[in-house]
Amino acid sequence: MSPHVPLAPITLILGGARSGKSALAERLAESQPGPCVYVATAEAWDEEMTERIAQHQARRGNRWHTHEAPRDLVACLQRLSDGGPERPGVILVDCLTLWLTNIMLAERAIGTEIQALTACLPDLRVPVILVSNEVGLGIVPENALARRFRDHAGRLNQATAAVAHSVIFVAAGLPLVLKGEAKALP
Amino acid sequence: MSPHVPLAPITLILGGARSGKSALAERLAESQPGPCVYVATAEAWDEEMTERIAQHQARRGNRWHTHEAPRDLVACLQRLSDGGPERPGVILVDCLTLWLTNIMLAERAIGTEIQALTACLPDLRVPVILVSNEVGLGIVPENALARRFRDHAGRLNQATAAVAHSVIFVAAGLPLVLKGEAKALP
Amino acid sequence: MSPHVPLAPITLILGGARSGKSALAERLAESQPGPCVYVATAEAWDEEMTERIAQHQARRGNRWHTHEAPRDLVACLQRLSDGGPERPGVILVDCLTLWLTNIMLAERAIGTEIQALTACLPDLRVPVILVSNEVGLGIVPENALARRFRDHAGRLNQATAAVAHSVIFVAAGLPLVLKGEAKALP
Repeated sequence: MSPHVPLAPITLILGGARSGKSALAERLAESQPGPCVYVATAEAWDEEMTERIAQHQARRGNRWHTHEAPRDLVACLQRLSDGGPERPGVILVDCLTLWLTNIMLAERAIGTEIQALTACLPDLRVPVILVSNEVGLGIVPENALARRFRDHAGRLNQATAAVAHSVIFVAAGLPLVLKGEAKALP
Repeated sequence: MSPHVPLAPITLILGGARSGKSALAERLAESQPGPCVYVATAEAWDEEMTERIAQHQARRGNRWHTHEAPRDLVACLQRLSDGGPERPGVILVDCLTLWLTNIMLAERAIGTEIQALTACLPDLRVPVILVSNEVGLGIVPENALARRFRDHAGRLNQATAAVAHSVIFVAAGLPLVLKGEAKALP
Repeated sequence: MSPHVPLAPITLILGGARSGKSALAERLAESQPGPCVYVATAEAWDEEMTERIAQHQARRGNRWHTHEAPRDLVACLQRLSDGGPERPGVILVDCLTLWLTNIMLAERAIGTEIQALTACLPDLRVPVILVSNEVGLGIVPENALARRFRDHAGRLNQATAAVAHSVIFVAAGLPLVLKGEAKALP
């Protein structure tokens, strides 16, 4: 995508672990004019996660501002959308799967949270790119919590895909358009 | 798909857990004229499964009749196909993966069972929609039984896809046509 | 693909367990003129693996020569490419995921090995077909080593896809072109 080809209002980028989905999302955001906001849902609760966060930050240049929203994602998106002259050109949420993990750990009502998220997205005044993991294509997990997580993750992806204008599946760094126009991607 | 666009004789719908594959299969069946038969392969052996079955049943309306075939799927399909004036307009089998689990637990000869299934499908006088899980895209399971299951599930999907006229992969509720015509889906 | 339609110089075939990716790779290789070389990265370290190797060999006919390269894949590819009149018509590497397992077990520097592989591919004088597993679409593994493996496998697939001219994802035996021309496949 050459610069200034306008983004769909809501873009969902789905993929597996290390599929290149975050890198594609970042290139897509950077193809837009104006400042990019990165909404990080990760919490650095161990060394492995601290390292992953540092790797992601190192890749992004200084056109980016980072906001942290491990749980209060809807409030964060609304605040950014209402920011007046401070409003960014594009918001990238990376990733919905970690947000889901965090609200499950906080024992919030998952269905209500997913509904609030998908209800707020169409009203945002800034194009938003959401990154999410596909986790349902392996063997049924032996662990009951993992099965519950997998079910919620699947429902979250379905609900988000239903309101998104563009849904792109990424494998080995390569995009596959599941919904919306198959225009050239950056 | 608008009503009365005829279904392919054999349709396979593949997807991960909570991918929306059953919902797509049901919409596809309901786009056809005549009564719909739901062939359930699930057995309610625990609470989690009882709840899943109840959720699936609640979603289907009263155009549907349910038949249970946890193991004797071929006999069930042939009986429905031979039903004369009682013959349904469409048969939906949900899902092949649970049927495979059940025949593995019953220690039947898997290869023979898969062959009998794929041999019977082309002779059915009613269009059939088969739902199946893709389970081979995660890390190799540590458990040897899970590895065996994954191998059989992959072979079952390949054998069914080979005789199907239409194969649709579903992710986040969105269809991706792998085989057959990419007509509009309901 | 009818015989003699030339292969892309580098083809990557991605898929899950028992997806039919090796069979597709073999049909693709056999659609080419000249002798086919099979580069096996598997080591028969247990009965299960011995059986898998035997099954794969039984399927291939006698147009094939087998070379084993569980770890020294780059050297093997270069030797085959430099073979002068002995040079094969096509090389099939099955599979990159086992090669990665082997170099991880040998405690080699993974990043360096991946870079050496992707650097050597464009210089080969023989078309090469690489088979690799997609392993990142299940739930996050509980085992830290499995998580590390999954990360490396994702990076390996991305790096290989970046230099490949044709990338095909296989599910249930059916091909889906992710990169390159969507020509008829054998």
